[in-house]
Amino acid sequence: MVHSRIDDKFLEALAAACGGRISLSEDDRRTHGSGEAYHAPMPPDVVAFPSSTDEVSRIAALCHDAGVPIIAFGAGTSLEGNVAAPFGGVCLDLRGMDAIVEIAAADLDCMVQAGVTRLHLNKMLRDTGLFFPIDPGADATIGGMAATRASGTNAVRYGTMRDAVLGLTVVLVDGSIICTGTRTRKSSAGYDLTRLFVGSEGTLGIITEVRLRLHGIPETVRVARSHFETLADAVSTVTQIMQMGIPVARVELADAAQMRAINAYSRSAYPERDTLFFECHGAEGAVAEQIALVEMLVRTHGGLDWTIALNAEDRSRLWQARHDALYASTAQRPGSKGYITDVCVPVSRLGDCIELAREMIAKASFPATIVGHVGDGNFHVICPIDPSSETERKEAHTIADALARQAIAVGGTCTGEHGIGLGKLDYMTIEHGQAGVDAMWLIKRAFDPRGLLNPGKVLPKPSTESPSS
Amino acid sequence: MVHSRIDDKFLEALAAACGGRISLSEDDRRTHGSGEAYHAPMPPDVVAFPSSTDEVSRIAALCHDAGVPIIAFGAGTSLEGNVAAPFGGVCLDLRGMDAIVEIAAADLDCMVQAGVTRLHLNKMLRDTGLFFPIDPGADATIGGMAATRASGTNAVRYGTMRDAVLGLTVVLVDGSIICTGTRTRKSSAGYDLTRLFVGSEGTLGIITEVRLRLHGIPETVRVARSHFETLADAVSTVTQIMQMGIPVARVELADAAQMRAINAYSRSAYPERDTLFFECHGAEGAVAEQIALVEMLVRTHGGLDWTIALNAEDRSRLWQARHDALYASTAQRPGSKGYITDVCVPVSRLGDCIELAREMIAKASFPATIVGHVGDGNFHVICPIDPSSETERKEAHTIADALARQAIAVGGTCTGEHGIGLGKLDYMTIEHGQAGVDAMWLIKRAFDPRGLLNPGKVLPKPSTESPSS
Repeated sequence: MVHSRIDDKFLEALAAACGGRISLSEDDRRTHGSGEAYHAPMPPDVVAFPSSTDEVSRIAALCHDAGVPIIAFGAGTSLEGNVAAPFGGVCLDLRGMDAIVEIAAADLDCMVQAGVTRLHLNKMLRDTGLFFPIDPGADATIGGMAATRASGTNAVRYGTMRDAVLGLTVVLVDGSIICTGTRTRKSSAGYDLTRLFVGSEGTLGIITEVRLRLHGIPETVRVARSHFETLADAVSTVTQIMQMGIPVARVELADAAQMRAINAYSRSAYPERDTLFFECHGAEGAVAEQIALVEMLVRTHGGLDWTIALNAEDRSRLWQARHDALYASTAQRPGSKGYITDVCVPVSRLGDCIELAREMIAKASFPATIVGHVGDGNFHVICPIDPSSETERKEAHTIADALARQAIAVGGTCTGEHGIGLGKLDYMTIEHGQAGVDAMWLIKRAFDPRGLLNPGKVLPKPSTESPSS
Repeated sequence: MVHSRIDDKFLEALAAACGGRISLSEDDRRTHGSGEAYHAPMPPDVVAFPSSTDEVSRIAALCHDAGVPIIAFGAGTSLEGNVAAPFGGVCLDLRGMDAIVEIAAADLDCMVQAGVTRLHLNKMLRDTGLFFPIDPGADATIGGMAATRASGTNAVRYGTMRDAVLGLTVVLVDGSIICTGTRTRKSSAGYDLTRLFVGSEGTLGIITEVRLRLHGIPETVRVARSHFETLADAVSTVTQIMQMGIPVARVELADAAQMRAINAYSRSAYPERDTLFFECHGAEGAVAEQIALVEMLVRTHGGLDWTIALNAEDRSRLWQARHDALYASTAQRPGSKGYITDVCVPVSRLGDCIELAREMIAKASFPATIVGHVGDGNFHVICPIDPSSETERKEAHTIADALARQAIAVGGTCTGEHGIGLGKLDYMTIEHGQAGVDAMWLIKRAFDPRGLLNPGKVLPKPSTESPSS
């Protein structure tokens, strides 16, 4: 759709604000209106490619004056329609902002521009002995990860983006610039603006720089896997590991169907059974203790074929296979797109919730798989659906809806790490209550009274002030 | 001061809202208008003792209708005038709300009412094998700790209240009730209301219940101490421990003057030298590795008299002595009150900042001491001042001011754990910039447009809508 306030004069000013780097091409607009999942693209009217916080500020001020929506875009790997442009407007592609501003190795932190990807950051850190642990699988941008409160496989030990972000540079809707947080781990100085913007999906401001906490590369890393007679046995193992507080770095689950899909996609030969992957980090003795405890629990729960990856190459092949789960799952059906659930539940309820998932996908008409960061109680059902089939979309939705409602009923959340975007709007009121959603609207209206920042996302029932063309 | 809108009719309705449990006595009002530090008491007009979230809601609605300020009160252990009532109003003493609502041992969490103190909680957890690690020294209430984003000695390993709080029940200014967060460690479902209320010091809502993350009591706990020729050597040791990422649970510093004060107060006989205290938690082998590394670094930096506490009694005596630092320091001068700094800085700058503190207190007219959670870069100068002496107050302020400004200049914060209250208002704009403070005002005005919630605290330059009598 073309936003009525976007005219030649606006486009001229927009181009002037970012060194002429804008695009109106259909191809650019389409790719900037979609993520990696099943949602139909909703293209913005124009894509701008700013290279600095100042340029973002100028564009925001321009859009603010003209009443035009503005949507931040990173690597395009989001899964819930988080970057769709249902009201048109300007998409801000931040990938040009890819500078590592500072690496403060002595303080275990760094400052990067929002467009730096996590793999690039870790490459740049290689000589420092430090690494950035948050690993959502996709090579997302740090800005996008902050905006969706991403996490992934390492969160069991290192936390999520909520914990990793020390401070932010944020451009507010009128173009003003704020710097949040401090370089210290602790502060009691006022409201936690950093945590407010982390996870706000570009609806309160545009994140342009991120200060991140880093960690020393562990002296010892040990990776192991085992498979189980039943999914329930695998889940019980995880539950007990977490309840005993064993400080593992990652505990990942892939069900038998997922292992089959992985083998086909990655040309690997893992046993096609319900499998757990473990990784432990730390000093040598500490890791040996952890792995011994994990092995004991695995064997107690009937784990078979306990295998420790012998070298770095084995380890990275194994994690690559795990990370390719989504692509492996959709590769089962060429042309399909993933409809992916993302519930996160208290570990004591993980068994029930995964059992419900198992029952539902057994009846599904597509080859759905289960994979997850079960150490955090977070798991995904990947439904490879034909994006043009309304029937399949509905069928996947039925599974996702049942899981989300069950997760919320047991004290969990409809989304552990993918965010609300457009896809999870219906669950906000169920999860937070009307009073909770109303409190979020107080914040949204305070920061974006005219509803120009990524409109239609995160909060259900757009306020009456939301933009219309 | 008596708030003009508090009349007999209001008091009658207030009493009716909380089962008659209100007090107008001068003594009650005075004790509820002050914390533990040097600030002169500013009593509220009336103290109410609600026993449930519903009663708090009713009182909030009443104050909202009448335009009367409302100030939440826990154990009264705050240090920055956080509970003072400069505009009068109703103090809500929440200590009657001391129920442990739920202990979910299998999920390592619990739900408590705001008035539960941390020591009581740990007593109630004793049979579960779990504990609540956040330890600010004083036996503060969980609600108060959440409201000031407290931390203390264990934060190096377990984080602060920001990390410990999973969710909250909050009464908003008009009496509406919201429940924030989930029981899971991860969620990407909307704005992080939990982290917004943690550290907001009762200025955005009244915290009435807190869901907390718990931890397994570690299999092995090892405590050690050592003293150093110079303060700089002690600090270098800490800096290196943190830079190496050794996962110690606590690293505490007490300078020679503090050790003297502790010995006098606790009738102990520790060497009266610049001293570090360490504690390591974990499995036996992991702790042995950590302690060995710490010992090696201590010896490298000239640490003397390395001593491992042999049993639980020795350990608790040692930490009790450390926790009594404030009382020990003021006990040096009967009748004195503590004027306490609270900067937190990146560890690489800890040496410079402690050196500035050392230089300044060497010239002070009172026997100031240095103590701190140096593993986090957080340390305190305790100035035992005569509260009636304007000269001493100014002298202490000069020290505190220099340290706060230096901390902010090196990327740190004016307050690591005590909060802003009234005492640190001047540093908010220096630390966050005018744009950052303006952003916080957007939130404050959205949640409390008439400025009734703990007015005058956290944000400098009260908005024009703030209450007047």
